[in-house]
Amino acid sequence: MKIALAQLNYHIGNFPDNISKITRSIKKAEEAGAELVVFAELAVSGYPPRDFLEFGDFINKCNDAIEEIAVHCNRISAIIGTPVFNNNKKGKPLYNAAAFLSDGKVKEYIYKTLLPNYDIFDEYRYFEPNREFKTIDFKGHRIALNICEDLWNVQDNPLYTINPMDEVMDQKPDFIINIAASPFNYHQIDIRTEILERNARKYDLPLFYVNHVGAQTELLFDGGSLVMDRHGNILDEMHYFKEDFRVYNLEDIEKDKVIRGITNTRSEIGMIHDALVMGIRNYFSKLGFTRAILGSSGGIDSAVTAAIAAAALGPENVSNILMPSRFSTDHSVNDAVQLAKNLDMPYETITIEKGFTAFEETLKPLFKDLPFDVTEENIQARTRGVILMALSNKFGNILLNTSNKSEAAVGYGTLYGDMNGGLSVLGDVYKTQVFELARYINREKEIIPENIITKPPSAELRPDQKDSDSLPAYHDLDEILYQYIELRKGPKEIIEMGFAEDLVSRTLKLVNANEYKRYQTPPILRVSSKAFGMGRRMPIVAKYLS
Amino acid sequence: MKIALAQLNYHIGNFPDNISKITRSIKKAEEAGAELVVFAELAVSGYPPRDFLEFGDFINKCNDAIEEIAVHCNRISAIIGTPVFNNNKKGKPLYNAAAFLSDGKVKEYIYKTLLPNYDIFDEYRYFEPNREFKTIDFKGHRIALNICEDLWNVQDNPLYTINPMDEVMDQKPDFIINIAASPFNYHQIDIRTEILERNARKYDLPLFYVNHVGAQTELLFDGGSLVMDRHGNILDEMHYFKEDFRVYNLEDIEKDKVIRGITNTRSEIGMIHDALVMGIRNYFSKLGFTRAILGSSGGIDSAVTAAIAAAALGPENVSNILMPSRFSTDHSVNDAVQLAKNLDMPYETITIEKGFTAFEETLKPLFKDLPFDVTEENIQARTRGVILMALSNKFGNILLNTSNKSEAAVGYGTLYGDMNGGLSVLGDVYKTQVFELARYINREKEIIPENIITKPPSAELRPDQKDSDSLPAYHDLDEILYQYIELRKGPKEIIEMGFAEDLVSRTLKLVNANEYKRYQTPPILRVSSKAFGMGRRMPIVAKYLS
Repeated sequence: MKIALAQLNYHIGNFPDNISKITRSIKKAEEAGAELVVFAELAVSGYPPRDFLEFGDFINKCNDAIEEIAVHCNRISAIIGTPVFNNNKKGKPLYNAAAFLSDGKVKEYIYKTLLPNYDIFDEYRYFEPNREFKTIDFKGHRIALNICEDLWNVQDNPLYTINPMDEVMDQKPDFIINIAASPFNYHQIDIRTEILERNARKYDLPLFYVNHVGAQTELLFDGGSLVMDRHGNILDEMHYFKEDFRVYNLEDIEKDKVIRGITNTRSEIGMIHDALVMGIRNYFSKLGFTRAILGSSGGIDSAVTAAIAAAALGPENVSNILMPSRFSTDHSVNDAVQLAKNLDMPYETITIEKGFTAFEETLKPLFKDLPFDVTEENIQARTRGVILMALSNKFGNILLNTSNKSEAAVGYGTLYGDMNGGLSVLGDVYKTQVFELARYINREKEIIPENIITKPPSAELRPDQKDSDSLPAYHDLDEILYQYIELRKGPKEIIEMGFAEDLVSRTLKLVNANEYKRYQTPPILRVSSKAFGMGRRMPIVAKYLS
Repeated sequence: MKIALAQLNYHIGNFPDNISKITRSIKKAEEAGAELVVFAELAVSGYPPRDFLEFGDFINKCNDAIEEIAVHCNRISAIIGTPVFNNNKKGKPLYNAAAFLSDGKVKEYIYKTLLPNYDIFDEYRYFEPNREFKTIDFKGHRIALNICEDLWNVQDNPLYTINPMDEVMDQKPDFIINIAASPFNYHQIDIRTEILERNARKYDLPLFYVNHVGAQTELLFDGGSLVMDRHGNILDEMHYFKEDFRVYNLEDIEKDKVIRGITNTRSEIGMIHDALVMGIRNYFSKLGFTRAILGSSGGIDSAVTAAIAAAALGPENVSNILMPSRFSTDHSVNDAVQLAKNLDMPYETITIEKGFTAFEETLKPLFKDLPFDVTEENIQARTRGVILMALSNKFGNILLNTSNKSEAAVGYGTLYGDMNGGLSVLGDVYKTQVFELARYINREKEIIPENIITKPPSAELRPDQKDSDSLPAYHDLDEILYQYIELRKGPKEIIEMGFAEDLVSRTLKLVNANEYKRYQTPPILRVSSKAFGMGRRMPIVAKYLS
């Protein structure tokens, strides 16, 4: 028996496009002689549909879509994820379901049991957990069909008190099919592989795994759908960060036959790079935009953002706007120009001097002789923000934000100034990782001018300013931030690692006191296990370590 | 036996302040001869602590606080909400607990069973549900002690498959104590009262209910703690929107003796007004600020915001900044001045002409002869935004945002312009409700000049502009928005109510297409059952009704 896996990039709520994408894959699978084709979790709606799930109209449209897709399943069967109504009187109104389509109709639904509700996941907000455990009988084979998190309770401190695979083992399934919506982070692929291995070995069963690919605003799905033998060996793995479609002989899989094995490279920084490229590309294409602009300061953050945007959208579609002030150094302007030339990108130079002076004069009657302070630094950043947004409005581009995670963490940025943008490209990338990305981008030739990488970082908002005047060295800062943000370590534990007490308490205080700024940040492409945004929910008004 | 209820305003994560507030109430209760004093859900941490709950350090501090508080419970017992570790190997790491303190130590914990995970609630993100049901024996009385949502499963379509009170009834409790963190919205007090009534009647037991009071960023807790007899009659109800402390004779309650009955007025618009006043006041006081500024346009939104801010902070602490442009009408400036005079508030006039002209000139080489469009409108709003933020930065004020919910819904506002601010006062108040608030504010004398209320709304960003040029009449718009946002009705259902199809589809499209703007909005004081912000989670990149 041949089984096809379709790793597709869905568009949330875009039923016509999702349906046609799915039915094309059904046709392709049928033509390849497959008897079953498998799609991802909540494929019909796109993932995550979030509060669209609270609209009856939206669920009805999902049902309609499933019925339309089922019509294409006469000579082939399909498994596809969709939300369905819970018809019981008690419990949440929906199930997260895998529909089994055959003979032109829905034959069966399998419901998700374990509903992730941590980090970026909110599934218990919408779904009732499954409590009845069944398998699917298909052409002499018995399939243990389940959904994403249902395989994830095999860890040492299990998050749930039940294990859906345990419940179906007495039905003696022949293999596992897991349909997933498992977003990327730079540790996730290894963790996910280990979890799937544990399942294959524990239940002594081969496993087919189908994931989403593509970006959904901040969430980046890497794909990496795979087939594993009963010993936990990966027999084949689909592409990362692009759509894929493959057909397998079940007999080969049952005989542990390696197809291609692991062909993707798992370089951490390379994956981050590719994830960000996909993130920009999908954000623009799904919103119907083609062109971006960004403020190009001659610093490393805007340089790396520009290079990634150029890879995503084509260099001709990314305008670099240089906006020097009286505090900008010549080398900054030259570096920014050189970057644009290296990347073959358009650039424009627009001085902020007129705007800045106008604000100085306008505010003079109120500011009188008060000294230059962070107010005037912010006015510069905000004047740039107004210019960039004016260009974005007038020419129909999207402004890319260039802030990095270290800055966002400690509030080293201006709200309504350099924090502006439709999408934050590096907001989940620490400064030290931005340097790594620059080196990665330059791995074959100098794209980002060497001077941008080697000079000391500066915001250039007052004479001779350096980041190191206000912030700890990035090497220390990033390590403390990682311990606090990603690992949720407390001050005591971080100090015990050898960091000075005042450095730690100052850093954590900055993080917590700047929650109000991050609340108004653009969506941030998520590449870590804990990004600012929907996966990290903090009170603004609080007094903890602040 | 005397039982004291303490309705307090906690500060999230501020353990020293919360502890001293709690211990003062313990002392007060003891002095009043009470044998038991009851505090709200998660009182020790403040509610909602959100992802602080993921920090072991934070939970340890909660534990330390409980131990410190227990020391004060020698001659009196106390019930108080706190998060505690789940010591089982399986399940989520925490319980949402009610600690029963007696003889100077923690005698018992009761865990929360029903974990709300909808709208603004995320409790299943952190907590394992309780599965063991017990009562508290105290001085010859048996108490059914439970936590907030535990009483909420008495509706016709119950959200949960279990009912904690059903599970303890065979232990024959004498009365119910429910400790809660139930935030305000203008329908909530009626709903909550009905839910509590249903419980009292169903289980034929008197009920003590202790709620939070005060604002936690966007969430507004009204208090309204109460005592109910076994027939569902309210025997006494504490103040709305302020701290309260009362002592009851259990014997009186058991004899259905009315203490004061319902003394609070439940006028919808009056409650919204008081909630917003408290929201501003607590936002400032808990962040350590005293002064606000706002852009005063002469329109109704900024006028109502100014009046509410004056009530919250004192008129002398709210600066009105008038920023006329070439498109401002004389009456706008006059109205804004009159408002400031009526309220006895400081005001300043700062023209945006210099800033606007500087941007026009700066952008001329790129814009060339392209016509005036929304870009130039946005530049005006953003020039005002830069001026307001400069004043905020220089003088250490917080900028109040003056956008209303109707505008926020359809994207009728400028990101980084009039959408700026530390806190949005009216972002959950539809335009038609803003007019009601203005009438309410003027109920005794004319505070908001009549002309502000009666003139047609205008953004004054181009000559003779009116809101009605771009938007449907607010009466229709607000009704459609309410059906879609609060009630989650689909287009078909709204059209069936009698609205034109093109009006409905245009409105819903505007709502969904402007999600990207609302993502960067300041926190919005929540007064409805569905506010923009943490309780409404939508994808930005999507194509549903858009």
